[in-house]
Amino acid sequence: MTMEVFDRAEFARCRRAMRGVRPLVQCLTNDVVQEITANVLLAAGASPAMVVSPEESGDFARIAHAVLVNIGTPTPERIEGMRRAVEGAEAVGHPWVLDPVAAGILPWRDGVIRSFVERRPTVIRGNASEILALAGTGQGGCGVDSTDASDAAVETAKRFATETGSIIVVTGERDFVTDGTRTLVVEGGHPTATLVVGTGCSLSALVAAYVGAMPEEPLHAAAASCFAAKRAAEAAARISVRPGTFHTAYIDALFEED
Amino acid sequence: MTMEVFDRAEFARCRRAMRGVRPLVQCLTNDVVQEITANVLLAAGASPAMVVSPEESGDFARIAHAVLVNIGTPTPERIEGMRRAVEGAEAVGHPWVLDPVAAGILPWRDGVIRSFVERRPTVIRGNASEILALAGTGQGGCGVDSTDASDAAVETAKRFATETGSIIVVTGERDFVTDGTRTLVVEGGHPTATLVVGTGCSLSALVAAYVGAMPEEPLHAAAASCFAAKRAAEAAARISVRPGTFHTAYIDALFEED
Amino acid sequence: MTMEVFDRAEFARCRRAMRGVRPLVQCLTNDVVQEITANVLLAAGASPAMVVSPEESGDFARIAHAVLVNIGTPTPERIEGMRRAVEGAEAVGHPWVLDPVAAGILPWRDGVIRSFVERRPTVIRGNASEILALAGTGQGGCGVDSTDASDAAVETAKRFATETGSIIVVTGERDFVTDGTRTLVVEGGHPTATLVVGTGCSLSALVAAYVGAMPEEPLHAAAASCFAAKRAAEAAARISVRPGTFHTAYIDALFEED
Repeated sequence: MTMEVFDRAEFARCRRAMRGVRPLVQCLTNDVVQEITANVLLAAGASPAMVVSPEESGDFARIAHAVLVNIGTPTPERIEGMRRAVEGAEAVGHPWVLDPVAAGILPWRDGVIRSFVERRPTVIRGNASEILALAGTGQGGCGVDSTDASDAAVETAKRFATETGSIIVVTGERDFVTDGTRTLVVEGGHPTATLVVGTGCSLSALVAAYVGAMPEEPLHAAAASCFAAKRAAEAAARISVRPGTFHTAYIDALFEED
Repeated sequence: MTMEVFDRAEFARCRRAMRGVRPLVQCLTNDVVQEITANVLLAAGASPAMVVSPEESGDFARIAHAVLVNIGTPTPERIEGMRRAVEGAEAVGHPWVLDPVAAGILPWRDGVIRSFVERRPTVIRGNASEILALAGTGQGGCGVDSTDASDAAVETAKRFATETGSIIVVTGERDFVTDGTRTLVVEGGHPTATLVVGTGCSLSALVAAYVGAMPEEPLHAAAASCFAAKRAAEAAARISVRPGTFHTAYIDALFEED
Repeated sequence: MTMEVFDRAEFARCRRAMRGVRPLVQCLTNDVVQEITANVLLAAGASPAMVVSPEESGDFARIAHAVLVNIGTPTPERIEGMRRAVEGAEAVGHPWVLDPVAAGILPWRDGVIRSFVERRPTVIRGNASEILALAGTGQGGCGVDSTDASDAAVETAKRFATETGSIIVVTGERDFVTDGTRTLVVEGGHPTATLVVGTGCSLSALVAAYVGAMPEEPLHAAAASCFAAKRAAEAAARISVRPGTFHTAYIDALFEED
C-alpha cells in the first residue's frame, strides 16, 4: 500500500492535458453553487453545461466529457434528471463524479446517495464526515460542514474504494485520493476557502473536468483537480483572507495556474 | 412606548454570542439569492444549510438553530418544503424568520405569505411596502423594491407586531425592530446596498442566525443583525460605491466586524 | 439593405431613456445566472424581478415593462410559467425577449424553443450557433458555447428576422441587430467576458430592459444593450483580464457608463 505526495510536475502534465481537451462538463448540482461551479470550470479551462431536466439530461450526457452529480438540494425531479444523466454517461463509457453533500444526517437523502453509490461513480468526492458516513463508520457532520479531519478518514476511504470500485477523494486540510491500492496526497490550501460557499462543490466539478479529459488516468486526474484547488486557495490567500476578496482571487488564481 | 437607538455596545455583545454559537441556519430562500445568502452567513460567522425538499426539510429543522423562509420564488413544492421546515422548528421550539418578498402585489403569493404569518414567525423582516401591505394599510411596492420609506411604516409595524405576536423588522433608510411594545432603531447603512441583489434577503438570513443563537432575546438579536448589515454597508461604501466592488467589500466587512 | 454601425451618441440617447424609465424586468431565466442577471440589471439602472411560478407569472407580466424568457434550464413547470408570462405581456402589449440557450443540440429543448419562437418574441438574442440552428441552417454549438462566428450568421439572421417578425440579435465578436431590413452592428467587447458565466444571458435581460423602456424603437434599444455590454467588457478588461476580477469590474462598468 503506497501513499504518495502528488507533485507539481504531475499537476503540470495533467493540467496541460485538461486544457488541451477543454472538457464539456455536465453539472447536475445544487441550487446554491451553480454560478461558482460554472465560473470555476470556465476559469480552469473547462466548459460547464447545466443540462438537468429528465427530458434531456440523458441525451446530453452522451455528448459531455463527464457528468457531475451533486446531491446538495435534491428533489424527486432532479434526482430523475441525475439518474438519466448517469445512464447516458454509462452508455457511452464516460466518467461521472458523485458529491454526496451532507451524507449521514438525513435518512431520505442518504437513500438517494446510496442509490448513486451503487451505480459505481468513477469518483466520489466528499469531506471526511461525508465519506465516513457513507462508509458506515461515521455519523455525518454538522449540516454541510465536516466535523472530522480528513486524515481520520484515510483508512476508511481506502476500504470504501475497494468495496465500491470508485475512486474516493476525501478533502480537508490534506486531500487524499485513493483507489484502495494507491493513495495520492495533496497538501496545502487555505482555511478561508471554507468561508466561501461552493469551493468544495466546485472542486467536485473540477474533478469531473480532469477525469473527463483524462479518463484513462482517473486517479491522477482527481488528484490534479485537488492540487489546482489547493494552489488557487493559497494564491488567493496571498491576496486576501477576507472571504469576499478571496472568492474573486480564487477564480483569478484558477485561471492563472500553470 | 419606547423608541431606542440600538448601539455598538449592544451589538458587540450580541455578535460575540452569535459567533460563539456559530448557528446552523436552514435557509429556504429564493432562486436568486442562494449564493449571497450563504456567503453572508459564512462571513458573519454562521453556518448556512439549504435543505429545502419536503422529504427532508422537517427533519433538518429539528437540527438547525433557526429556519429562514423567504417567499421570493415560490412554487407549490417549495412551499410544502417550507411548511414542513416551520413545523419542524416549532416542534423543537426553534425560531424561524419570514421574509415576505413582494407582498401586496400578487394575490396567490399574498395567500401563501398570509398562511405563514398565521403560523406566527419569530420575526418577520420586510421593507416598508411589504410590511404596510401585510398589515393591510399599503398597496405593495414596485416588484421587489419598496416605494415607501421605512419611517412611514413604524406605527403600522408596532400594531402588526401586537396583532401577530411576531417581532416585525422594517428595513430601509432606518431599520425598526419592534415587538409592539419596545422599538429598537438602527441607523446608517448605504444606498449602494440596494444595487446588489440579495442584501435584503441575506439580512433576513442573518436575523435567523442571530435569533437562532440568542433565542431568549429575539428583539435584540434582530436589531444586531440589522446593525451588522448597516455597518458592513458603510464599510463597503468607504471602499467603493460601484456595485460590483461594493458587493465584494460588503462580504469582507461582515467578516471583519467586531 | 443597410448595415450601420451603432454609435456612442445613439447609445447615450437610449441609455438616458432607459435610466429615465427604470424598467421593471420580469426574468424567467436559468438556474445558473440568476444573480448576475439581477446584478447586471441593477447596475445598469433597471429593476429585476424573478416572478416565475405559473400561479403568478402571468399577473406579474402585466405590471412589468418587459419579460425575459431564457431557456437555459427548462422544466415543464418553468416552461408553463414562461408561457403564462408571455401571454400576460402579449395581453398588455409589452415586449418580451427570448434567449434560446443551446438551441440545436437537444430535441426536447428545441421543441420548447420553437414553441416560443412561434409566439413571435419582440427580440431573439443568441450566439451564432444558436441562431443558425434556430433558422435551420446550423447544427448547434458545443453545449452553451458558440462554435460559429457571429459574422457567419448575419445573412441567416436577416432572413430569420423577416420570417419570424422578431428582431434577431446575434452576439459574438461583433454583435448584429436586425429586423430583416435594417441591420445595426456593435463592435468591440472583450473575450474574457466568455469566461464569466451569464454575461450572455444577462445581456438578454439588458435587451429586455432597453426594449421595455423604449418599446417604440426595439431595434435601437436592442443595439444599445449590446453597446452597453461591449463597452463594459472593454472597461473591465482595462482593470483585469482575469475572470474573477473582470466579473466585478464588469458590474462596476455597467453602473458607471454614461
